[in-house]
Amino acid sequence: MSKQRVLTGITTTGTPHLGNYVGAIRPAIEASRDTNNESFYFLADYHALIKCQDPAAVHQSTKEIAATWLALGLDTDNAVFYRQSDIREIPELTWMLNCICAKGLMNRAHAYKGAVDVNIAEGEDADKAITMGLFSYPVLMAADILMFGAHKVPVGKDQIQHVEMARDMAQRFNHIYCKKEPLLTLPNFQVDDNVAVLQGLDGRKMSKSYGNTIPLFLGEKQLKKHINKIKTNLLEPGEAKDPDTSTVFQIWQAFATPEQTAEMRQAFADGIGWGDAKAQLFALVNAEVAEARERYEDLMARPADIEAELQKGAIKARAVAAPLLEKIRASVGIFGLA
Amino acid sequence: MSKQRVLTGITTTGTPHLGNYVGAIRPAIEASRDTNNESFYFLADYHALIKCQDPAAVHQSTKEIAATWLALGLDTDNAVFYRQSDIREIPELTWMLNCICAKGLMNRAHAYKGAVDVNIAEGEDADKAITMGLFSYPVLMAADILMFGAHKVPVGKDQIQHVEMARDMAQRFNHIYCKKEPLLTLPNFQVDDNVAVLQGLDGRKMSKSYGNTIPLFLGEKQLKKHINKIKTNLLEPGEAKDPDTSTVFQIWQAFATPEQTAEMRQAFADGIGWGDAKAQLFALVNAEVAEARERYEDLMARPADIEAELQKGAIKARAVAAPLLEKIRASVGIFGLA
Repeated sequence: MSKQRVLTGITTTGTPHLGNYVGAIRPAIEASRDTNNESFYFLADYHALIKCQDPAAVHQSTKEIAATWLALGLDTDNAVFYRQSDIREIPELTWMLNCICAKGLMNRAHAYKGAVDVNIAEGEDADKAITMGLFSYPVLMAADILMFGAHKVPVGKDQIQHVEMARDMAQRFNHIYCKKEPLLTLPNFQVDDNVAVLQGLDGRKMSKSYGNTIPLFLGEKQLKKHINKIKTNLLEPGEAKDPDTSTVFQIWQAFATPEQTAEMRQAFADGIGWGDAKAQLFALVNAEVAEARERYEDLMARPADIEAELQKGAIKARAVAAPLLEKIRASVGIFGLA
Repeated sequence: MSKQRVLTGITTTGTPHLGNYVGAIRPAIEASRDTNNESFYFLADYHALIKCQDPAAVHQSTKEIAATWLALGLDTDNAVFYRQSDIREIPELTWMLNCICAKGLMNRAHAYKGAVDVNIAEGEDADKAITMGLFSYPVLMAADILMFGAHKVPVGKDQIQHVEMARDMAQRFNHIYCKKEPLLTLPNFQVDDNVAVLQGLDGRKMSKSYGNTIPLFLGEKQLKKHINKIKTNLLEPGEAKDPDTSTVFQIWQAFATPEQTAEMRQAFADGIGWGDAKAQLFALVNAEVAEARERYEDLMARPADIEAELQKGAIKARAVAAPLLEKIRASVGIFGLA
């Protein structure tokens, strides 16, 4: 059986935090080592433009996220790691897909409908502040996927619909233009039901939009400070504590071995003090990230090395995209006259 | 004063007919000789994909239209003559513009609204059979215009709105991203109120959709046959005829000198027979197109020469587009890390 091609997009807005690390980055980097797969990871900076009109932030985020994945050990010889905007073939395929994609399909996209619902609830025009970028984003995402013939796209539940739309567009394109042999591979979504969702400082889901995150590569002192800010209750040392409602315990679990988790559960029952528990949590998290943090800081100081990695990835990615796009162009009637 | 840049798109569907020639091609080729202007002409094959899902037809039309303009004497040293799909920068700029273009603007586009009205009148879903290509076509057209910093875009009245939309998008982009110096040139539409509209064989406007056209480069025999098919009334030779309601006279006028027109008007009053008038019309039209027809047939037999002209144009066009796109990319935050 030929290798399964797995494609993962990484939106380049914001600075990676522990929640991203545990829920997305760590499992993705592990998956990249699976030799049954051919893994493609890309920095989705065209997508970032939809949400972020601050050029410095888009650029900085691209740099930080690339450095993060590299520092954490993404194997760029085995996997293909590239920046979306280096693959000029993608926006061109987006246009081809526009021409076969029903507008009605986009009308039904969750993200768009959600934005419309908010506008209507506020008594505003349904499309207020909605750009064509937001509206047609699933077409770009379809091009991201179809450009590389991805078989599997690991996504959160909220993104399942977009992979199904990409599948729809591939089917429609093949039906119209590829009578002999389908050019576009039909992708499947892959949802991991066991994705670890980390709580943030305030006990809600860790998320940039709540301002409750612990950035992944804080310096040691800052990391300690952030961990000390995790909200706890007023129980004193010596009083038994409930691990299952504790953010400290929850984060511990995400970094600990099963044995360490069992030990900490016992410590909670035995009335470990919050300060003590947080000190241990800091030590645990710090031990896991310290080496990568050093590599990260090193990379951030040598952006040319990050860029070189991305260029290496772009060459590999375009080696797939360019010949496929030429076939797609020819199939719609765009090819040289001689 | 620096040269005015004038941009004209040519949709690559169908075979050019006398109506296209008189109304669009002939004046455009004349305008291209104006040394006050820097003229850009492009074969809009990305646009053709919206309307035509027959690859052979898209390709054939591109070839015929390119050969037509070249045969008619478009000066490709003075003007820039290129195929849209050779400028890979255009779809990329389209995405950038998507991200700043309000969806509401597209909702108000005449072409889209027209299609919706038809659907509603037929009791169908408003967006039935409307693709994202049709819906977002004004964004692609804006990219066509803005990619080359066009000052003037000669259009028919139905296209004024699209140039205004391009202007809107340029303003918005400059406002968001170009605090120091605007990157995008604000285009102006240019409507020629005296565009010659030719009648077709049946007396209605000559149009592919009515099936009443006289193709521009028919062989002599076929041209004669087509002209003989022009609908006339039953007046006999010797009976005075009304030139102002006659398609024969109307086409005559489009090809004749003022003197020749006056003579034919007199001949109508004097009761020229239809057969005689048509024979004279054939001779007049044939005289104007004969030489170009020979060049056309010659070019159609040597597609490599057409392709070479388009490649020459692509190099000139990309020399404008590529550096501007790099600036646009940088302004939104997409540039190398080192």
